[in-house]
Parts: sequence; structure tokens; C-alpha cells
Amino acid sequence: MIPPELLMASQPREIVLQSNVFSVEKMTIELRGGGSAVRHIVRHPGAVCVLGLLDDGRLVTIRNFRVATGQWMNEFCAGKLELGEDPLRAAARELEEETGYRAASIDSLGTFYTSPGFTDELMHAFVARGLAPCPVRLELDERIEVIARTVDAFEDMVGTGEVCDAKTIATYFRWRLLEEASRRVRM
Amino acid sequence: MIPPELLMASQPREIVLQSNVFSVEKMTIELRGGGSAVRHIVRHPGAVCVLGLLDDGRLVTIRNFRVATGQWMNEFCAGKLELGEDPLRAAARELEEETGYRAASIDSLGTFYTSPGFTDELMHAFVARGLAPCPVRLELDERIEVIARTVDAFEDMVGTGEVCDAKTIATYFRWRLLEEASRRVRM
Repeated sequence: MIPPELLMASQPREIVLQSNVFSVEKMTIELRGGGSAVRHIVRHPGAVCVLGLLDDGRLVTIRNFRVATGQWMNEFCAGKLELGEDPLRAAARELEEETGYRAASIDSLGTFYTSPGFTDELMHAFVARGLAPCPVRLELDERIEVIARTVDAFEDMVGTGEVCDAKTIATYFRWRLLEEASRRVRM
Repeated sequence: MIPPELLMASQPREIVLQSNVFSVEKMTIELRGGGSAVRHIVRHPGAVCVLGLLDDGRLVTIRNFRVATGQWMNEFCAGKLELGEDPLRAAARELEEETGYRAASIDSLGTFYTSPGFTDELMHAFVARGLAPCPVRLELDERIEVIARTVDAFEDMVGTGEVCDAKTIATYFRWRLLEEASRRVRM
């Protein structure tokens, strides 16, 4: 059987919409048993999400007004990659701009896709430590409030749904797995 | 200050693209200090994600070829809501169609947004228990392999990045929080 990767590569693609954040690509895919179907894919430059860890163990969260969902959401700081920007640099930049903290160290928590059913947006997750205050620099369309929360309070909010942002939950869980592994090593 | 919710409601909106899964809406938002900016939002009907729990404690995962990312991904079974479909019914349907399991009970793990920076896609997360085999019914564009994994193996894969799908990680963590809470109650 020809792998679907190859079948797709031979299909024509066309950008049918270009926004300032993403583009939409129209492509034709092969169906099992012959025939084809049109799919629209949202092409995204990728983004970063940063878990800011304060020296007292609290997490730096933000309340962020989201135009797309029409509501205030509890999230970790995040933002899309600028053209050609290194994800680690973007993480440091977003943390400073949105939360007003400069980090002594930032470590990768790997990457994940936010919604692979229709977009290639790849999220680069990080944990930032050794935080020291610096000036906040919000974009003109950003409305953000910074709130430090204990791990217990944060997990309660994930459970109740007060934290309902996939990248924030996934980033947190990657960090927690790391913490659990390092606790096992120390024991 | 006028809340941003009200400022936005007064702005004109326009659907500029309609695909078979989502539409793209162009809207104008107010900026702090005057002025405005155009934003494109991907409007999505919402989706479900189902953690299938086998009686032996293993998790039902799928290997799923994703056209958007061009790769095979390890995920929980999932799918978009049909027009007017109840999320619980959609969860039962997707579990049967994609994994070949019928559930005796399906419970909500709440909802989360997959990428609120640019889309309103809301994911309804569920855990399905009491699974019994039934026929798989894949859509013509689906390429899926079903794999049962232990919790330990699954968590290892989240840590290594072999599981790199936000909804799968977020759904799992919501379930794990529930399990931890019920273990505390039993102790």
C-alpha cells in the first residue's frame, strides 16, 4: 500500500485565505477505495507556552481576554512565533511582555499540536525558573491580568474547568511528569 | 471602562471562508488608546475526545494519520460534533466508530478550548468505562490503528513527546485528577 504521506504529497495545494496570524490551505486527499475529497487546513507559524515558576513554588498564570472565545480565560503566558524566531527566545520575550518576569533559566517541556484535526499549529512548551520582576509590555490588543497561584489551587481550577485552555493543561502536565520523575530519583 | 465584550459586540463581522469543518470570520476589534485592528477567527462546531478505559486499567489509544500535520499521531479517539449533536452521543459514536468499543458508561471530564488565540473550538472530554467490542466503522478519509496502553506506558509517551496532541494530554490529566481525588476519598 502506498503510504498516505506520499499520496498527499502529489495532491495540488492552494492558499485560499491569508490572515495576519494564519493561512488556510485547500488540499485534495485520496480516499480509501478511490475517489478524493477536499480538505481545508489552517497553517499556523507555531507558538510558545510558558509555565513561570516562582521561587516560592507558585505558578505565574494570566487572566486573558480572548476575542475568539469571547471570554476571560486562565492560562499560562503564550504567544505565536514571529517569523523565523527561535522558540526559546520567543518564550523569554512573551514571559517578559505579558507577565513582567525575566527568567534566569528556561527549559523545554517539548512540543505538542493544539488541534491536529484541522491545523498544524505546534506549541513549544517551556518552564521558566529564577523569575525576577521586569516591566510589562502588552500589545495594544492584549488585556491581561497576572495572578500567581499555588499548584494545589491551579489543579483545583483544572478540575473545576476554571482552567479550560488545552495548552495550559498540557504544558502543566508535562512539567508535573518531570517533577514526579525527579522526586523519584531523589528518593 | 467599557468591558471588551461590549466593544466587540458592536463591531461588524463577516464570514470570509466556509469549509466542511470550520468557517473563518473576519472581525474588527478596538485597541487600547483608540484605533482598531482586523482579526480572523476560525469558527468551529466543537468536538469530543474520549479516554476509553479497559477493565484491566489500560487506555484505548489510536494511531491516527493526520493530514494537517502530515504524520501519524498517538491520540485518544475524537471527532467533531455533527450539527446539533449532543456531545455525549458524539462521544459514544466516535468511540464505537474509531476504536470498536461500546461503553457501558460515559462520564464528562468537562470542556476546554484547543487554541483560543485563533479559534473557538471547544473540546468536550469524556471517560468511557465498561468497554465491550463492537464493529469498527471508519470514515473513508480515516486511517486509524487501535492500541491499548498501560497508564505508565502512556505517561512515558507524554513525557518523551510520542504523545504530542493537546486534547489527548489535557483529557488524560483531567481524568487523572479525578482518580487522585477518588483515591484520597477512599484512604
